[in-house]
Amino acid sequence: MNGSGKADAGGYGGGELLIPPLNFAMVTPGVYRSGYPNSKNHAFLKKLRLKTIIYLCPEDYMAVNVQFMQSNSIRVLQFGIQGNKEPFVDIPEDAIRDALQALLDVRNHPTLIHCNKGKHRTGCLVGTLRKVQRWSLTSTIDEYRRFAGLKVRALDQQFIELFDTRKVMYDRRYKPSWL
Amino acid sequence: MNGSGKADAGGYGGGELLIPPLNFAMVTPGVYRSGYPNSKNHAFLKKLRLKTIIYLCPEDYMAVNVQFMQSNSIRVLQFGIQGNKEPFVDIPEDAIRDALQALLDVRNHPTLIHCNKGKHRTGCLVGTLRKVQRWSLTSTIDEYRRFAGLKVRALDQQFIELFDTRKVMYDRRYKPSWL
Repeated sequence: MNGSGKADAGGYGGGELLIPPLNFAMVTPGVYRSGYPNSKNHAFLKKLRLKTIIYLCPEDYMAVNVQFMQSNSIRVLQFGIQGNKEPFVDIPEDAIRDALQALLDVRNHPTLIHCNKGKHRTGCLVGTLRKVQRWSLTSTIDEYRRFAGLKVRALDQQFIELFDTRKVMYDRRYKPSWL
Repeated sequence: MNGSGKADAGGYGGGELLIPPLNFAMVTPGVYRSGYPNSKNHAFLKKLRLKTIIYLCPEDYMAVNVQFMQSNSIRVLQFGIQGNKEPFVDIPEDAIRDALQALLDVRNHPTLIHCNKGKHRTGCLVGTLRKVQRWSLTSTIDEYRRFAGLKVRALDQQFIELFDTRKVMYDRRYKPSWL
């Protein structure tokens, strides 16, 4: 450090290590994605100043997370979706559309989308978001695959391809700058 | 559309498809990463309202991009780094540190970091950024690997692990909110 306002980045924050949830990434301004967070991730999540969490599993939210969300005034929006266990369980288009509509409302931002691994349900929702953002299908699927790793599911990719964005409604007053 | 301000997201943007550069992603607020953009990506890049591009290759910038950057008032900050061709070429710590210092100045945001594939040089720079953000090494390397795919380089990961953040200087007046 010296008089000109220069500081040493290595000294920042007193040395506390921050641990993002599994498969964490930023999706677009105001939107993050990840796998299921746990208490190790709370210090990291705190820095994101989240307003909501978009939780895509049908199971009740883990108590330690409920407590963290409450004490940080983070609202959990739950859209209970079963995993797309090929070929027997379909991703419900209605529930993904509801979650997508919550994503397209800046009053919910910053928000974190998560399921268990941050691969399939989260990947499907982010894929539909990219369609609304008018990304090419190649780029959208490439991103899906990057997060799914070796667990890529063909039916998830088919779901994204067939998802009908014309049924997606948003409120113009609260639409994100990137829409 | 109806009187309450609801709009149909499917109709958004008049149907122009947007094509992100290869390996495109958002890194953190104000920072994006990708492979080498070309003219197909210009409409997409325009929507990011970039102020700078942090270009990590030693080669002159492609003419069609120079023209695009000029007509959109995007400044190209070039840090010419040779690819880390294991085991013969080291990533130069000085050049990465210079690029990182440019990243840590909000006057350059929004910025897009890119090299050729968005895997190695870009992955190394983003890795050092994560160290400054105090991410755990596991998460940092996991992210590096997600973008490197089958082309993971052990020496890149070693470079990130050994990079000394104490030598990184930033100007407090212009530091990003996430630092």
